[in-house]
Amino acid sequence: MYQTYADDSMALHTDFYELNMIYTHWKKANHTKKAVFEVYYRSNPFGMGYTIFAGLERVVDYITNIKFSESDIAYLREIKTFPEDFLDYLKEWRFKGTIRSFKEGEVAFANEPLIQVEGPLADCQLIETALLNIVNFQTLIATKASQIKSAAGNDPVLEFGARRAQEFDAALWGARATYIGGCDSTSNTRAAKVFGIPAAGTHAHALVQAYRDEYQAFKAYAETHKDCVFLVDTYHTLDSGVPNAIRVANEMGDKINFQGVRLDSGDLSYLSKRVRQQLDEAGYPDAKIFVSNDLNAETILNLKMQGAKIDVWGVGTKMITAYDQPALGAVYKIVSVEGNDREMHHTLKLTANAAKISTPGKKQVWRIRSKNNVKPEGDYIALDGERPDQQDELYMFHPQYTYINKTVKDFTARPLLQDIIVDGELVYDMPELEEIKRYAEESLSEQWEENKRLLNPEPYPVDLSQELYDAKVETIKLFKEIAKSTHSENDALF
Amino acid sequence: MYQTYADDSMALHTDFYELNMIYTHWKKANHTKKAVFEVYYRSNPFGMGYTIFAGLERVVDYITNIKFSESDIAYLREIKTFPEDFLDYLKEWRFKGTIRSFKEGEVAFANEPLIQVEGPLADCQLIETALLNIVNFQTLIATKASQIKSAAGNDPVLEFGARRAQEFDAALWGARATYIGGCDSTSNTRAAKVFGIPAAGTHAHALVQAYRDEYQAFKAYAETHKDCVFLVDTYHTLDSGVPNAIRVANEMGDKINFQGVRLDSGDLSYLSKRVRQQLDEAGYPDAKIFVSNDLNAETILNLKMQGAKIDVWGVGTKMITAYDQPALGAVYKIVSVEGNDREMHHTLKLTANAAKISTPGKKQVWRIRSKNNVKPEGDYIALDGERPDQQDELYMFHPQYTYINKTVKDFTARPLLQDIIVDGELVYDMPELEEIKRYAEESLSEQWEENKRLLNPEPYPVDLSQELYDAKVETIKLFKEIAKSTHSENDALF
Repeated sequence: MYQTYADDSMALHTDFYELNMIYTHWKKANHTKKAVFEVYYRSNPFGMGYTIFAGLERVVDYITNIKFSESDIAYLREIKTFPEDFLDYLKEWRFKGTIRSFKEGEVAFANEPLIQVEGPLADCQLIETALLNIVNFQTLIATKASQIKSAAGNDPVLEFGARRAQEFDAALWGARATYIGGCDSTSNTRAAKVFGIPAAGTHAHALVQAYRDEYQAFKAYAETHKDCVFLVDTYHTLDSGVPNAIRVANEMGDKINFQGVRLDSGDLSYLSKRVRQQLDEAGYPDAKIFVSNDLNAETILNLKMQGAKIDVWGVGTKMITAYDQPALGAVYKIVSVEGNDREMHHTLKLTANAAKISTPGKKQVWRIRSKNNVKPEGDYIALDGERPDQQDELYMFHPQYTYINKTVKDFTARPLLQDIIVDGELVYDMPELEEIKRYAEESLSEQWEENKRLLNPEPYPVDLSQELYDAKVETIKLFKEIAKSTHSENDALF
Repeated sequence: MYQTYADDSMALHTDFYELNMIYTHWKKANHTKKAVFEVYYRSNPFGMGYTIFAGLERVVDYITNIKFSESDIAYLREIKTFPEDFLDYLKEWRFKGTIRSFKEGEVAFANEPLIQVEGPLADCQLIETALLNIVNFQTLIATKASQIKSAAGNDPVLEFGARRAQEFDAALWGARATYIGGCDSTSNTRAAKVFGIPAAGTHAHALVQAYRDEYQAFKAYAETHKDCVFLVDTYHTLDSGVPNAIRVANEMGDKINFQGVRLDSGDLSYLSKRVRQQLDEAGYPDAKIFVSNDLNAETILNLKMQGAKIDVWGVGTKMITAYDQPALGAVYKIVSVEGNDREMHHTLKLTANAAKISTPGKKQVWRIRSKNNVKPEGDYIALDGERPDQQDELYMFHPQYTYINKTVKDFTARPLLQDIIVDGELVYDMPELEEIKRYAEESLSEQWEENKRLLNPEPYPVDLSQELYDAKVETIKLFKEIAKSTHSENDALF
């Protein structure tokens, strides 16, 4: 059996190379040099035009709680010959950096810094793995839920995925992310408890099978629950399931709230139309038809196109795992670092693929909206300290095709990176989940329909300021020089 | 901020409908009636011919620890008008059932009961969600690792996925599953600590970028670590990275163990050949070439086909998320239930798709091997109580195409479902992870190469005993009769 620790901690929930690098920095007395790292992803998932940023609450929870426990230290002592004074340093270590982040629920785009970490190099390095682990998943799932909700329109979408989620945390935090992204409830009772999400669910096939007689099973359920949604496809939806549901509804009358029936198999388009007819003819025009069975945005759109009579969508596997693209691929890159000269220096990683070269420097992301247009003009990434909100006009240009450009006047500029943790202290008033969900709706309602459509959305402009663009070009030039030489000690920052 | 509970428990890590069903059963005094449920999946993932079963340890951990805490009860009281005596029942509830399971590491196939739960109906029902949540993920990932390891042949495969895993538990338990499936180490330090997996990793691009000068960065790393693998693609692999690595190796001599270099971008086939040449010419023929960068089984096979000079494979995203099929889709079905007559009755769920109709009855799975052939003849699913191991010959036939059949003589029959928990008590001696890993290797080495190949594997026979087949046909017939009638109280078991 695996080892359980009374002092279990998340300090070691990090790639081992982070600890090896931290040791080098500590040994060389560079561990307290200041650095800036940023989290971003390179392309919007699922062919969509945006994402819904999520994961901040878990990030804050993680950051404000990590410290190395006794057993963590003992483990490190055991596997590697780290000196005792380094282990002492880790024992006392607490995160002392600053975290800036998009608000949860904010609509976000590729290549934008969603989280910025500034602080001692060691602190920045240690938290990389966990930050990405959290944000990659939660942002992906909130976005997937937004896609599915968008396909479902005004119909409720119920999150049913716990059994297919990738382990417990994914079921728990995934339920929360889907709620932010637009779902109306979760089947996961623990997620409902912890986050205050409405819990939903009535019964499974196993109830009918246990009674064997479907009518008796429905009747027993109705005698013990006020709200009833009967699952009608255990034997035969049209010949047995729906007639038994109607019979029980008739018998129970006002004693129950007959909410409707659920279909979990078969041709949902055909069956839902026939079931609608059966319910209407029996005098239950308000009884709703719930469906589930490997649904995703595409099947929902197709069922709607076929005129399926479906009122409520239960979505599991395809949403909770983001089945068609189960990883967002966000990265965490160092963009600025303090040298021996005590100055901050831009940094980037060169790569043969020009579009993939990262953008150096500590940044702010501004959402630009012209005052006579409620929709945004685009996002404008500027170096820290630039104040586009104080400018009269803004020159915005495509970061690769720079000849695509425009000048915006009469605009507002809203900074998206907010102070969350400053020098290790939480300064942000963490919003309630309902507020986050509402914020996501608002943030989305600001966007162009053309950018939000599910197929071939119009790309949303994410531009660099002139100053940032110039800094990038210069830094690339400098690093190309460095790359040419194997004897470039003069370039060393440390 | 979300609610944290000092008495956090996993009892509510269950779909809400389970609790609603349990309430009906409790209210109707059916909750202690005996039932048998089985976990199985319907097709092998990734186009493979088998899976590696994993997740049992976490299942045991979960089952032996779940109870409803004060805050769980308070939450249920708050959201639904469950009567107090039901809440009292939950408060005292402990799992009293019996769990039989495949051993972790066992090679498994579609439609085999991997876990069997027998016990009070309420107990069986409550644990459904968590069992599936665990086994679906861990089996999927162990299998994905087996696929990747199979592509890599004798080369080491390092698990690098934590940052792309679907939240913390997936990173943790996923690392363990990949180790069972064939990986050699993990980058996830906490997984390494908890499970005793070797931790691997040296440094990232950020180390080079912090120093800016690549040589100084490598040198600093080498001065602080004995074992060195230098990441050589921050600026230019061939012009800068490898020459700097060699320079540091030359300067440090015996002071370090120059294990090799890692490539994380670019054309890995071309670069690895050139890097091999550079290392060989510099007198480091034993220095290994590590690669990473969105690898999966297919890219590994292709790189090998191209003669890439790669020694060690670091695999992240595509393995830890099972990217090409991120859900196994295992289900948990009731197969037998005790009626008011105190007898156990077969049960199944009818469906329009004949191949999807479940197989009723409590079962055992036997792995059949003829004595003069080290490879198995197939798996033979029989009703509980059947003893194929005491028969002289065995008639094995295809469960759908019954005219495909054979008679096996001189065989051994090994039962795959083992007692793990009996009447709520753990009776199984949980093996160490190393033993599980070894068992997976052995279980796999028993199989036919034809079944293990990655593309178009030959299907492995998973047959039903005549008795089980007949029971299935009879039960289908009975349930079709039941389905015809909406007034079938005579069929009711409760």
